[in-house]
Amino acid sequence: MLETLKKDVYEANLEIVKQGLVIYTWGNASGFDPEKKLLVIKPSGVDYDTMGPEDMVVVDLDGNVVEGSYKPSSDTPTHRYLYKTYPELRGIVHTHSQWATTFAQAKQNIPPLGTTHADYFYGTIPITRPLNNEEIAKDYEWNTGAVIREIYENIGQTPLEIPGVLVAEHGPFAFGDSPAKAAHNAKVMEEVAKMAYHTAILSGGFKSMNKQLLDKHYLRKHGKNAYYGQK
Amino acid sequence: MLETLKKDVYEANLEIVKQGLVIYTWGNASGFDPEKKLLVIKPSGVDYDTMGPEDMVVVDLDGNVVEGSYKPSSDTPTHRYLYKTYPELRGIVHTHSQWATTFAQAKQNIPPLGTTHADYFYGTIPITRPLNNEEIAKDYEWNTGAVIREIYENIGQTPLEIPGVLVAEHGPFAFGDSPAKAAHNAKVMEEVAKMAYHTAILSGGFKSMNKQLLDKHYLRKHGKNAYYGQK
Amino acid sequence: MLETLKKDVYEANLEIVKQGLVIYTWGNASGFDPEKKLLVIKPSGVDYDTMGPEDMVVVDLDGNVVEGSYKPSSDTPTHRYLYKTYPELRGIVHTHSQWATTFAQAKQNIPPLGTTHADYFYGTIPITRPLNNEEIAKDYEWNTGAVIREIYENIGQTPLEIPGVLVAEHGPFAFGDSPAKAAHNAKVMEEVAKMAYHTAILSGGFKSMNKQLLDKHYLRKHGKNAYYGQK
Amino acid sequence: MLETLKKDVYEANLEIVKQGLVIYTWGNASGFDPEKKLLVIKPSGVDYDTMGPEDMVVVDLDGNVVEGSYKPSSDTPTHRYLYKTYPELRGIVHTHSQWATTFAQAKQNIPPLGTTHADYFYGTIPITRPLNNEEIAKDYEWNTGAVIREIYENIGQTPLEIPGVLVAEHGPFAFGDSPAKAAHNAKVMEEVAKMAYHTAILSGGFKSMNKQLLDKHYLRKHGKNAYYGQK
Repeated sequence: MLETLKKDVYEANLEIVKQGLVIYTWGNASGFDPEKKLLVIKPSGVDYDTMGPEDMVVVDLDGNVVEGSYKPSSDTPTHRYLYKTYPELRGIVHTHSQWATTFAQAKQNIPPLGTTHADYFYGTIPITRPLNNEEIAKDYEWNTGAVIREIYENIGQTPLEIPGVLVAEHGPFAFGDSPAKAAHNAKVMEEVAKMAYHTAILSGGFKSMNKQLLDKHYLRKHGKNAYYGQK
Repeated sequence: MLETLKKDVYEANLEIVKQGLVIYTWGNASGFDPEKKLLVIKPSGVDYDTMGPEDMVVVDLDGNVVEGSYKPSSDTPTHRYLYKTYPELRGIVHTHSQWATTFAQAKQNIPPLGTTHADYFYGTIPITRPLNNEEIAKDYEWNTGAVIREIYENIGQTPLEIPGVLVAEHGPFAFGDSPAKAAHNAKVMEEVAKMAYHTAILSGGFKSMNKQLLDKHYLRKHGKNAYYGQK
Repeated sequence: MLETLKKDVYEANLEIVKQGLVIYTWGNASGFDPEKKLLVIKPSGVDYDTMGPEDMVVVDLDGNVVEGSYKPSSDTPTHRYLYKTYPELRGIVHTHSQWATTFAQAKQNIPPLGTTHADYFYGTIPITRPLNNEEIAKDYEWNTGAVIREIYENIGQTPLEIPGVLVAEHGPFAFGDSPAKAAHNAKVMEEVAKMAYHTAILSGGFKSMNKQLLDKHYLRKHGKNAYYGQK
Repeated sequence: MLETLKKDVYEANLEIVKQGLVIYTWGNASGFDPEKKLLVIKPSGVDYDTMGPEDMVVVDLDGNVVEGSYKPSSDTPTHRYLYKTYPELRGIVHTHSQWATTFAQAKQNIPPLGTTHADYFYGTIPITRPLNNEEIAKDYEWNTGAVIREIYENIGQTPLEIPGVLVAEHGPFAFGDSPAKAAHNAKVMEEVAKMAYHTAILSGGFKSMNKQLLDKHYLRKHGKNAYYGQK
């Protein structure tokens, strides 16, 4: 079942390795079928070299494995929480990529500092609050999803407007309307984080870019008045 | 028409990817034919993998597409403005390369700090002022060309003497007497920016190099008394 | 003799080159057979390109070469000291990898700053005290092992709980229950060091992560209640 | 003539590109035959892709081209000065590699901070004083050699004890008893510079390592009591 989605998820998992975002088994990509309400995700701790599309695991929103011979990624409850909360998501990618993780470890969000950021993220890439000890002790991965939702609600934006978020002391999650798009946004977030880091060091702190320029760049690529790319 | 220029522009677009200056579709290279007053530029948002020389778009200086089945790069008005103002330019490259963009985001020019810089840029690589809201709202890309011209006029130099400029909160543009040379200069600007960043951090700020040494290195490679390279 | 271990040690030596941890001959990997009380180690200063599994040297715990036509690595006494002290070790890797060596040179340990660290190291990656002049003058390499033991005793942990250590003004050693695992942990330590460096610069110092989160991540991958990966 | 040396010099020129020290034509390697008192050097500004061993230029110590159809590197007078002053040198490499050049631009020498440095350089990698305007105006490249000699005399060491030097506001030169060894030392200097930079940032300045440890590491690899490597 869901053979196309399995292939898409498998390829997104390979792509984040190819783009230098993941070494060893330090990441996972998933995809979601909103009609069947099923998600497809990488198996836990399996080598990328030996993995095939058929090894992807199908899980329902309550966490039952519907198909697959492997255990799903240990981060599956986070993915479930997010697809349940934001059914418009079709792809989620989690990595420990170096620059985004640096921001996560420093508990520092990534304000928009230039048009590279603005072309993809309609505002600051937010950082969650740290989970408290109770949230860590019980249902840790599920609660990771919950703090992601909390920060999006606090800033009044959605994971498709700002398709990346940092979990404090942990690392980045990226989103998309497909697994491939989530992988793409994970790479963009990493590049944006790298430039934001050096910009902040060079200019002695974070000063957000002109809001009008942010709007201009985001809206020339997204929404009904977009004019970037081919029609 | 302009088959040779199309090939040159196509190759310059591939070169900036190969040199690590561009990922995805984050850049564009163009070339100019001063007799026909036509420019050739990359199509907007098209994958580098599938693109061929025949996909380059021919545009006149008023922005009309003269030949090509794709829409030209959304930054085409910037290129038009610059070829109109500086007809001696034959190539323009725009990227979001990491180190040059870091300077652009920090709104910091790149003073000459050593002979690597001096071999290519006859003085400080300037940064434009930010566009104001009016300039962003209407004819944004055209006005990007205008602020580039403004800064070159302010410093009393030309895009061929200083073949690189930073647009505030955006990124670098590089220039050359051919598309290949513009791509080459985009790479040099990136290397120079990377070293300038670390030099400034290491020495606690930007201290321009000895003007006599700048002259020596620039003029041993450029102008009528140059003695670098083969005759 | 020990043909399998020779092959494992040879491959661990190649792996640390492939992972970018070692250039030229700047590193060595060894493995230990606890029943025969013999260790297998890379020959000293031999090119990785021309080396084969049969060139690995077999040494006993007193430093006698039991088999092999080459001299063993000049760091062999350090490896001997550690296998003697910690017979549960099966692999040791020493490199001069850039980020871990940067911490070693700065005489700065690596506190846990995020889950990437916590997934592998159950607490701070410690740094030894500098060797004193007497320890340098006589039995330098053996004494390097001794200061490593000293720091583990001081923090009350073992090389398998914290499978990496920094030797002051020198560089990192990594440990594992196989040569491959030691090489793996050397790479992880390098990535963790790189992110710790930038996190500290970005946040103005080192602030250890929540201990509860450290426990959660370490223990979901290690020990009897681990639930990461397949089993 | 000097076919073997030409091949060695050619290969050293390729090696510095392969090691990431040189892009485009930003470097040159030479070799010296002390009996014939001739040096072999890369031609000026010729592409590495099209160059062969037969294109290397043979020059005498007065600067006359003895063999070769190309003009020699514009830096040839620096090489001549150094071979004349230090006939024990057999190879010289000049690059604009990023980290060593960063130190040159910051006018900061590289003190020994750890054993990686000590394995190759027997003390601080020195930086020359800036050339004065007179020295730049006339015989610039020859005078570059002269300030290199001056700094070695000031510190009382030789280019084979400390086989690397930084020329202020310019970049590094590396030395060896063969062109290959000079290229090797250029790479080591770059790695050492990169780690020294980050060590200084992390620890808030440059604090030289224990002199006893410097001696130990240098002398276990060099001189009559060396015991590193195979006999």
